[in-house]
Amino acid sequence: MTGWLAIAGLGPGDPNMVTPEVTAALAEATDVIGYIPYVARIASREGLVLHPSDNRVELDRATHALQLATQGHRVVVVSSGDPGVFAMAAAVFEALEAGPSEWRDLDIRVLPGITAMLAASARAGAPLGHDFCAINLSDNLKPWGVIECRVRLAAQADFAIAFYNPRSKARPDGLVRIFEILNETCRDDRPVLFARAVSTAQETLRIVPLPEASAEMADMRTMIIVGSSLTRVIDRAIGPILYTPRSAS
Amino acid sequence: MTGWLAIAGLGPGDPNMVTPEVTAALAEATDVIGYIPYVARIASREGLVLHPSDNRVELDRATHALQLATQGHRVVVVSSGDPGVFAMAAAVFEALEAGPSEWRDLDIRVLPGITAMLAASARAGAPLGHDFCAINLSDNLKPWGVIECRVRLAAQADFAIAFYNPRSKARPDGLVRIFEILNETCRDDRPVLFARAVSTAQETLRIVPLPEASAEMADMRTMIIVGSSLTRVIDRAIGPILYTPRSAS
Repeated sequence: MTGWLAIAGLGPGDPNMVTPEVTAALAEATDVIGYIPYVARIASREGLVLHPSDNRVELDRATHALQLATQGHRVVVVSSGDPGVFAMAAAVFEALEAGPSEWRDLDIRVLPGITAMLAASARAGAPLGHDFCAINLSDNLKPWGVIECRVRLAAQADFAIAFYNPRSKARPDGLVRIFEILNETCRDDRPVLFARAVSTAQETLRIVPLPEASAEMADMRTMIIVGSSLTRVIDRAIGPILYTPRSAS
Repeated sequence: MTGWLAIAGLGPGDPNMVTPEVTAALAEATDVIGYIPYVARIASREGLVLHPSDNRVELDRATHALQLATQGHRVVVVSSGDPGVFAMAAAVFEALEAGPSEWRDLDIRVLPGITAMLAASARAGAPLGHDFCAINLSDNLKPWGVIECRVRLAAQADFAIAFYNPRSKARPDGLVRIFEILNETCRDDRPVLFARAVSTAQETLRIVPLPEASAEMADMRTMIIVGSSLTRVIDRAIGPILYTPRSAS
């Protein structure tokens, strides 16, 4: 049996946002590896072994996946959203680069998914309709100073900004500081979207002006999108639309 | 009949990357509206009217869609990739905001798709595995000076940078200037990905060091991803892997 490794994105939660190529890879897999809540989204069946693991063991998980594939297993590593955006694909390639040379002969594919910022943006309207950036606020793997500097430059560049992992247990005051920096730099009342658990039964959306945004509005399941200076809110009886026009003028 | 409007992303080209919710919306639609090559991806069937239109008529197309939905049609506006990223969603909301108040009562949904940078990133490895930004190089709708300033700040912030629409007919030398700015600001040989027509039969991938990147390597169907200072290439006999590690240190 020839093994392979697919690193697949499950999208934000709704099964109707999983691409057919991801569904097909899961149907052929012998092993599914990933963080507990993501593996919980995969139906068990005969011939499939589920390997749920805890958070913050990404490199162990990646090594396990590479070993199984080398032994001939058909392995799918699952991430929520897109595996290439703050998720398992980079961890697998870190492990591969540091590992035995035989791993470089493996059949490895990355199967993209609907990443959280695209799902949140779609639900709210189109806040990412013009130039934007994505910043991971988890400081497990990068110094906090780098994050602050990057946020300041992103605001100067007038990007809409999507924040992943906005509430870190290790640094609960980080998001407070981010909003201080944004208020200092932007000096306006651009809209901020707090999109929680998008496409699931727990979904909530909230839009507030930047000066009113506070860290308490986010938890670990929240995606935050801060508009650019051009981002607008259309008021409607059935709920607001948040969008960034295509034109910069 | 109650009309609705869905603004849907068809992904990069491969039908296996179209989400089931987009497929379901297309199956219920009475009308599909979009740029000629995207509408060409929709199979015709009884009860479905296809409305292909030329490039650069986004607001006319959006107005047409809103009018048909108001008249009770079930309308899908199609974009390649994700409709919220440099595509039709923002155009529809621009038209809606400027249009009659009855348009604000319409049932409008945005259905996300696999945007070009995610597809390109997945094919090459995981170059967007750490903080990144997306910049549209078309200057139809923004002054060129804004683009240059934003690229400079993005490089200072050490984002990986995904460039959409890198070759503008209106400004063929724009991409030349972008590479000049990046070489001035970055002063290193970080890798640059040219990913053309990803997921189609015409797909090509090419990775070169920044000092060797040239505008001739891109055309209208190319997505360019410039790595951050941390982005790496893993050499393999079966082809290189491009990725950005999760750690900033």
